[in-house]
Amino acid sequence: MSEHYRPRDSMTKPRIASGPRTFMRLPWVDDPLTAEGRIDVAVVGVPTDSAVSYRSGARFGPEAIRAASILLRDHNPATGVDVTRTLSMVDAGDAPVVPGYHELTLQRLEDFLAPLYERGIVPLLLGGDHSLVMAEMRAMARHLGPVSVVHFDAHGDVLDDYYGVKHFHGTMFRRGVEEGVVDPHTSVQVGMRGSVHPDDVDSGKALGYDVIGWDELVDLTPEAFGRRVRERVGDRPVMVSFDIDFIDPAYAPGTGTPEVGGPTSYQTLRYIRALGPLNYRGLDIVEVAPPYDHADITSHAASVVAFELLGQVALRSGRTRAAETGEEH
Amino acid sequence: MSEHYRPRDSMTKPRIASGPRTFMRLPWVDDPLTAEGRIDVAVVGVPTDSAVSYRSGARFGPEAIRAASILLRDHNPATGVDVTRTLSMVDAGDAPVVPGYHELTLQRLEDFLAPLYERGIVPLLLGGDHSLVMAEMRAMARHLGPVSVVHFDAHGDVLDDYYGVKHFHGTMFRRGVEEGVVDPHTSVQVGMRGSVHPDDVDSGKALGYDVIGWDELVDLTPEAFGRRVRERVGDRPVMVSFDIDFIDPAYAPGTGTPEVGGPTSYQTLRYIRALGPLNYRGLDIVEVAPPYDHADITSHAASVVAFELLGQVALRSGRTRAAETGEEH
Amino acid sequence: MSEHYRPRDSMTKPRIASGPRTFMRLPWVDDPLTAEGRIDVAVVGVPTDSAVSYRSGARFGPEAIRAASILLRDHNPATGVDVTRTLSMVDAGDAPVVPGYHELTLQRLEDFLAPLYERGIVPLLLGGDHSLVMAEMRAMARHLGPVSVVHFDAHGDVLDDYYGVKHFHGTMFRRGVEEGVVDPHTSVQVGMRGSVHPDDVDSGKALGYDVIGWDELVDLTPEAFGRRVRERVGDRPVMVSFDIDFIDPAYAPGTGTPEVGGPTSYQTLRYIRALGPLNYRGLDIVEVAPPYDHADITSHAASVVAFELLGQVALRSGRTRAAETGEEH
Amino acid sequence: MSEHYRPRDSMTKPRIASGPRTFMRLPWVDDPLTAEGRIDVAVVGVPTDSAVSYRSGARFGPEAIRAASILLRDHNPATGVDVTRTLSMVDAGDAPVVPGYHELTLQRLEDFLAPLYERGIVPLLLGGDHSLVMAEMRAMARHLGPVSVVHFDAHGDVLDDYYGVKHFHGTMFRRGVEEGVVDPHTSVQVGMRGSVHPDDVDSGKALGYDVIGWDELVDLTPEAFGRRVRERVGDRPVMVSFDIDFIDPAYAPGTGTPEVGGPTSYQTLRYIRALGPLNYRGLDIVEVAPPYDHADITSHAASVVAFELLGQVALRSGRTRAAETGEEH
Amino acid sequence: MSEHYRPRDSMTKPRIASGPRTFMRLPWVDDPLTAEGRIDVAVVGVPTDSAVSYRSGARFGPEAIRAASILLRDHNPATGVDVTRTLSMVDAGDAPVVPGYHELTLQRLEDFLAPLYERGIVPLLLGGDHSLVMAEMRAMARHLGPVSVVHFDAHGDVLDDYYGVKHFHGTMFRRGVEEGVVDPHTSVQVGMRGSVHPDDVDSGKALGYDVIGWDELVDLTPEAFGRRVRERVGDRPVMVSFDIDFIDPAYAPGTGTPEVGGPTSYQTLRYIRALGPLNYRGLDIVEVAPPYDHADITSHAASVVAFELLGQVALRSGRTRAAETGEEH
Amino acid sequence: MSEHYRPRDSMTKPRIASGPRTFMRLPWVDDPLTAEGRIDVAVVGVPTDSAVSYRSGARFGPEAIRAASILLRDHNPATGVDVTRTLSMVDAGDAPVVPGYHELTLQRLEDFLAPLYERGIVPLLLGGDHSLVMAEMRAMARHLGPVSVVHFDAHGDVLDDYYGVKHFHGTMFRRGVEEGVVDPHTSVQVGMRGSVHPDDVDSGKALGYDVIGWDELVDLTPEAFGRRVRERVGDRPVMVSFDIDFIDPAYAPGTGTPEVGGPTSYQTLRYIRALGPLNYRGLDIVEVAPPYDHADITSHAASVVAFELLGQVALRSGRTRAAETGEEH
Repeated sequence: MSEHYRPRDSMTKPRIASGPRTFMRLPWVDDPLTAEGRIDVAVVGVPTDSAVSYRSGARFGPEAIRAASILLRDHNPATGVDVTRTLSMVDAGDAPVVPGYHELTLQRLEDFLAPLYERGIVPLLLGGDHSLVMAEMRAMARHLGPVSVVHFDAHGDVLDDYYGVKHFHGTMFRRGVEEGVVDPHTSVQVGMRGSVHPDDVDSGKALGYDVIGWDELVDLTPEAFGRRVRERVGDRPVMVSFDIDFIDPAYAPGTGTPEVGGPTSYQTLRYIRALGPLNYRGLDIVEVAPPYDHADITSHAASVVAFELLGQVALRSGRTRAAETGEEH
Repeated sequence: MSEHYRPRDSMTKPRIASGPRTFMRLPWVDDPLTAEGRIDVAVVGVPTDSAVSYRSGARFGPEAIRAASILLRDHNPATGVDVTRTLSMVDAGDAPVVPGYHELTLQRLEDFLAPLYERGIVPLLLGGDHSLVMAEMRAMARHLGPVSVVHFDAHGDVLDDYYGVKHFHGTMFRRGVEEGVVDPHTSVQVGMRGSVHPDDVDSGKALGYDVIGWDELVDLTPEAFGRRVRERVGDRPVMVSFDIDFIDPAYAPGTGTPEVGGPTSYQTLRYIRALGPLNYRGLDIVEVAPPYDHADITSHAASVVAFELLGQVALRSGRTRAAETGEEH
Repeated sequence: MSEHYRPRDSMTKPRIASGPRTFMRLPWVDDPLTAEGRIDVAVVGVPTDSAVSYRSGARFGPEAIRAASILLRDHNPATGVDVTRTLSMVDAGDAPVVPGYHELTLQRLEDFLAPLYERGIVPLLLGGDHSLVMAEMRAMARHLGPVSVVHFDAHGDVLDDYYGVKHFHGTMFRRGVEEGVVDPHTSVQVGMRGSVHPDDVDSGKALGYDVIGWDELVDLTPEAFGRRVRERVGDRPVMVSFDIDFIDPAYAPGTGTPEVGGPTSYQTLRYIRALGPLNYRGLDIVEVAPPYDHADITSHAASVVAFELLGQVALRSGRTRAAETGEEH
Repeated sequence: MSEHYRPRDSMTKPRIASGPRTFMRLPWVDDPLTAEGRIDVAVVGVPTDSAVSYRSGARFGPEAIRAASILLRDHNPATGVDVTRTLSMVDAGDAPVVPGYHELTLQRLEDFLAPLYERGIVPLLLGGDHSLVMAEMRAMARHLGPVSVVHFDAHGDVLDDYYGVKHFHGTMFRRGVEEGVVDPHTSVQVGMRGSVHPDDVDSGKALGYDVIGWDELVDLTPEAFGRRVRERVGDRPVMVSFDIDFIDPAYAPGTGTPEVGGPTSYQTLRYIRALGPLNYRGLDIVEVAPPYDHADITSHAASVVAFELLGQVALRSGRTRAAETGEEH
Repeated sequence: MSEHYRPRDSMTKPRIASGPRTFMRLPWVDDPLTAEGRIDVAVVGVPTDSAVSYRSGARFGPEAIRAASILLRDHNPATGVDVTRTLSMVDAGDAPVVPGYHELTLQRLEDFLAPLYERGIVPLLLGGDHSLVMAEMRAMARHLGPVSVVHFDAHGDVLDDYYGVKHFHGTMFRRGVEEGVVDPHTSVQVGMRGSVHPDDVDSGKALGYDVIGWDELVDLTPEAFGRRVRERVGDRPVMVSFDIDFIDPAYAPGTGTPEVGGPTSYQTLRYIRALGPLNYRGLDIVEVAPPYDHADITSHAASVVAFELLGQVALRSGRTRAAETGEEH
Repeated sequence: MSEHYRPRDSMTKPRIASGPRTFMRLPWVDDPLTAEGRIDVAVVGVPTDSAVSYRSGARFGPEAIRAASILLRDHNPATGVDVTRTLSMVDAGDAPVVPGYHELTLQRLEDFLAPLYERGIVPLLLGGDHSLVMAEMRAMARHLGPVSVVHFDAHGDVLDDYYGVKHFHGTMFRRGVEEGVVDPHTSVQVGMRGSVHPDDVDSGKALGYDVIGWDELVDLTPEAFGRRVRERVGDRPVMVSFDIDFIDPAYAPGTGTPEVGGPTSYQTLRYIRALGPLNYRGLDIVEVAPPYDHADITSHAASVVAFELLGQVALRSGRTRAAETGEEH
């Protein structure tokens, strides 16, 4: 039977002595495609920040999230999930990127990711700026067709163009629809708020997304939110794209386009836990910009968000495996 | 017809390339009194911090709020207001101040502001410490008589004297009543909390203000709060004075006298949006102390608060203009 | 009649000019045992951080909390308590500690504290890391027998061992039970959340504590919480141990083991104010790590938490003294 | 006679009250080509950082240098130059840039700059990352032919390619030679130090530059250095390109590629003052990355370097004008 | 025989456990005039920053210097002086100041200081902004007549007026001459550099000071510098006024008016050690602005400068006492 | 022939995309004793900070130095050494440590290191606080007998005891002599400065060390310094122990016991390069405390110091290997 990858033990050697920082103290397996063990989840750093309109710095997001994540312990009492026991996970290092060349970056990244999706590995992308999602969606669609998206963000990222270019970190969810790699009618955008360009009012809805702005979300219970997402998405292959600026800047100051007046991190965790066992095929957590962080609170928030998303994947995965083996989990 | 001032476009040139930082990328018009275009709102920096009792630094508040405000976009989906289309606004630079000479500063500031109020321009003052409000009230009262005040703050600022002086950033709303430039009986103080000097308990109420402490406010819906303010103020000329320490220090750490245990920024925005179309004649946002900020979250909070207050002014202004022209807005 | 110790007056000389930073501008009385005046509360710094598993820095907690606390004023409008009038308090400087020698530190600290408890003085310990509580419990138990504990924390601190040692900042509330210095059956643990080691699930309950995790607490009103604590503790001698990481890292970033997704500081104050007049014999506020703080917001939060806890002591103390003297308070 | 542009007076209104931050409190003239007054120097912000290999953040360099530069006073006692009296200078706002699209940025920037050089205006470019120099050289060469360069930097920036691309912030001074827009044989590179890629050893010299590494420079007196530069450059049109990482990171931490072990800022000023009256046609000061700065010391260093470079231009300019008018200066 | 005040021992209890931060762990004696022991030096905090033209924050200078100074040990191997054995020193807390009222502050401060000078106690003033020196000079002159000054600073502080006022942190050494409280002809100004207002060129020399600008100082050996000072000052009563911006901002970023291109801290210490046994009657170290500091390096620099200045006082004092008692020291 | 370990290539994938941060992008080989390739140098993190007397935080030193070191390129033009071609190096992760238990840490660390020395591998220890050197010396002496030490530091670390304990970060170089694991007569201490405890004056010399204080070193040329060290040490097995506080706090603020008035980083590099081809058996770089760093300048300084020390090892190693194979290098 193939190896199940696990984090380094933090009880015999303190977590501060776990060596180079991999995500959650997981083994570093540079090429998941040729690894000997089974791999359910491969964590991939995507250190980009060229295509951002306001503050840069997200290129150090992967480094910072990895460093913070050594604090994560295996068990989540809130959901009852022990993610590292259910899922075999590795840190696969960083994807190839080309600073200053956004379209080239997207191309190389897509080629890097496509085989992972094909192999059934769920990549957890650590951004980097949100524009990477363009490559993520294209790579998924190669194998899976147009994907469903659950998109947490303060901004819809559905602008058309910007100073004459079509791709930057505010246009992907329009481009994805145009290119046919995302299916807006089975997708949800959550958390939008703040001032917008007049051209941008209601443009997500016009594209076909179910847009749950923060003003609407705050009045939904987590359970109602979860139901709405599950009804929308069904059992289609889905990716969850989590822009850290979904959370209020008090909780996540280290980001490129802070939007005042958002959810607390606790509200955020509650909404994530309510997602339930979707057919998760891809995850990303983006826009963590460490130069603007302090005390690493944004990186810790991102690492906990990733942990909770992995917990949802584990729930599904545990259930699926139980079904396959005929055992109760 | 006279010119309508607008922000620089951020769609053809990114906002990070909008040049020297004016508030919201507005044109810099040094002397609004002699400008050719119509001016509804003039943004004025008031870089003071001499008269503060604890942490200084607010003298760089105007610079920091201007820098953060370049992120503001024109349209507010939460209120449906496009503030820059309704209001013709300029950045009028900074008022004259004299560090270390509080009373001289008040005098020069009053003389600087009075003609603006007289001309019907609404100054949006960017502080600077809160003591500047003394000059603001005096200047307004020259033309308008005793003004009504809606005062958001963690502190009532109604102390009598302090180490032998009568004017500093904790006495203005007592002095204003004594001098007859503010009418407490049509004014509201909102958000007071935290420990106080024994002499200071209930002194705002004793002066005649309607004081809605944070412990009381938290149990009011925004709508109920808005009604209470509108009933109190009516259609009298009113100024809104917003001390950034109204918001909890987690959301606004960059301030001089942080008061633990306050509203989130989202709660704050909800209360502001509930104010409704008062007869706004003056606005200030004060006590932003950048040396204590991080990732500019306080400056961003201040710039969004200013944006929402301007939205309220625009609501009123749009309505008034519609009434004048007989058109529906 | 013996002297009643009071803070320096901040009305004649500004608080920024109150000299070396003692807690709340109180007199510095190096040896409370030989002081001439009556002492109800002695503030003691315990500058340790050796025995922490993640981030160090708490050794500067006492310095930072003292500095922030000069902003505290005497009266608490939320509870109606004027703590400095009811309680005679001093700053007793720092306890002896030995960096790098955790067990030696515990020993010296216990010997330092025991006579204070015996004399009926309530020490307010400013940490320093949470492991100091081991000495605190042992010292109290010498005189009072097994104590009741109200323990606010994101973590239960009931691990068994850790890389082969039995004492560090995550094991004390297990060790205390084993040593018989704490009575778990009349004690409460509040606020636990976040990922845990699999061995650690439900171990607090297994030891006999009433554990109110954050997910449960958030659904309790402050009043219901207060009742539950009072029913559990009754009138037994009790210590309140407050780990600053109880509060969400957005509000208290300056701490060693931040746990994303916790209470706001306002929620925290409401729960503390609901405790009511227990038979307080000891207080600590720990894990403030200033190198990770910004704008001193964590230190301010800690100083306000201390202020509110002292207010609860004052409530009890006022009542007790009234009972003794037959007067109404 | 045409207007001579001057900074706002800081004696009648304190410099902190000089309004939106323009470079050195100069007038903001958006289009120098159509201005009424004479313009010797136009300060232009170039807020880029896409094409950097390590730390980003330089896009906020122009904002930060402008803010720091309000402290500059007019007279330089070390050189006897009153730069604002000799030169008529304006702040021309920011150049058009396109984040994430390096080659597009270079194109737009070149088109923006070329007319300025043609008109005989000396642009002082505030970076932004160093890759902008590619557009600067191309724009100058359009009108002036291959330019001479005096290049202060810790790095030679003469790499060939990097992860498959030819343009980023480490290749410009090779590309410039290849494109024929820079003449290496009349150019000097100064200050190189630190570890290099094996391919990069001595490549500047191989291209034809006079390379004065830091280990060599430190043994030159400022006078000897100045002579060597003047002999090399002669009276050809020259640009000075100053990468802030020339200075040691202790003095200039806010930069993208810090190189330990460099000159102090005082040594730097001495070398700049020794340049003498070259035929200056272009200036840039680049790689100021404010997110990594503290207390703005890097921005202040950059603003003083700019001030000293302008002083050298003024020396030449004063002399030239004196020659034209037949007067002694 | 009267008590000799000494610092707390840091060998039996670590310095981090020395309790509230007094300067150098010295005893806090609130009123030196009524103390029982002999007092040679009284450390006095002067927490002002109202009268500054650029960055505020120096009001927390005394707190920060005290905190850093707990690291100072008693013996100085470079000079062979054990300052705490030679001098009996206390921390006398803070002087009365009135934020926002510069002239009132000067008045109260002068009255506070005058009796100390009269009693022969040497006050070591911890600033606070430099304007406090006006009160210091006036208070000294009351008893001693016009004093000699050794003034270390990047700026001469001899401006005439500024936005219409005569007293702020840039005019004192002109005002002092005009008022006859300082004798410029036996005084020295050291370290001036950077850009100046045209009115300000050579104005120190015109007033009669010996001005040794940084460009001149750097070419003097410490010994030559010391001789020049001693010849100028002779044995007249002298105060040393040390503005921390004398040192380069890389070494002392936490200050109000940073001036790029100055001495290192090592050069600074060498110059101080060369002063020799002058007839010291007053010392100040000013313009430490903690909000702009990092890692407390400015506060540490200030505390070491104070330590070295005290060492010079001790040299003189030891010699004097030896002369009085006929003993060799 | 056995594998030669090399860093990841930064020319095909940018260094920011090199994945989890290992020292200098080297391969992570967890157990160098069982590795297949030849290992000349093993980089080992030692994340301790329990036994420090002032500021903690050094436990994150290894993480921060690794992160900064990804900027290091292979070739050193100043010495002509290509360290990664000469030496086969790996990152061996972190050593076992026990926070709060200094003696237990020393024991486990000694056992971890001893086999490496025995195998002829040179460990480069990344601290962590300096007390780890006790284990380093003991482990080396097991195999090599009393070692020679070249010790760069602002402090001699030869105190006897401290608050009753014999081992902390200020006593190792006395303990080492007492235990016979270090030979002071062939060892050198370099860079001592600052105030000291009276018991500590000249105690290094009394123990037999050649102590070159900073005041003496500054007058030595690098060459003279190198000669003196080589004459003292000869060809005996030597360890170089580099405390980052050797460098002035302006260049290395992120450290536990900053000592004002030390060498620049450039002076430091020159002294290291002058060491020459000693018989290096062990290296450490310690006391990097990231919470007090800014812009990672201390970590960059440490990583460059490590790089230069490795260069010296490579010089020797290259020469030795050439001698063995009879080839010229």
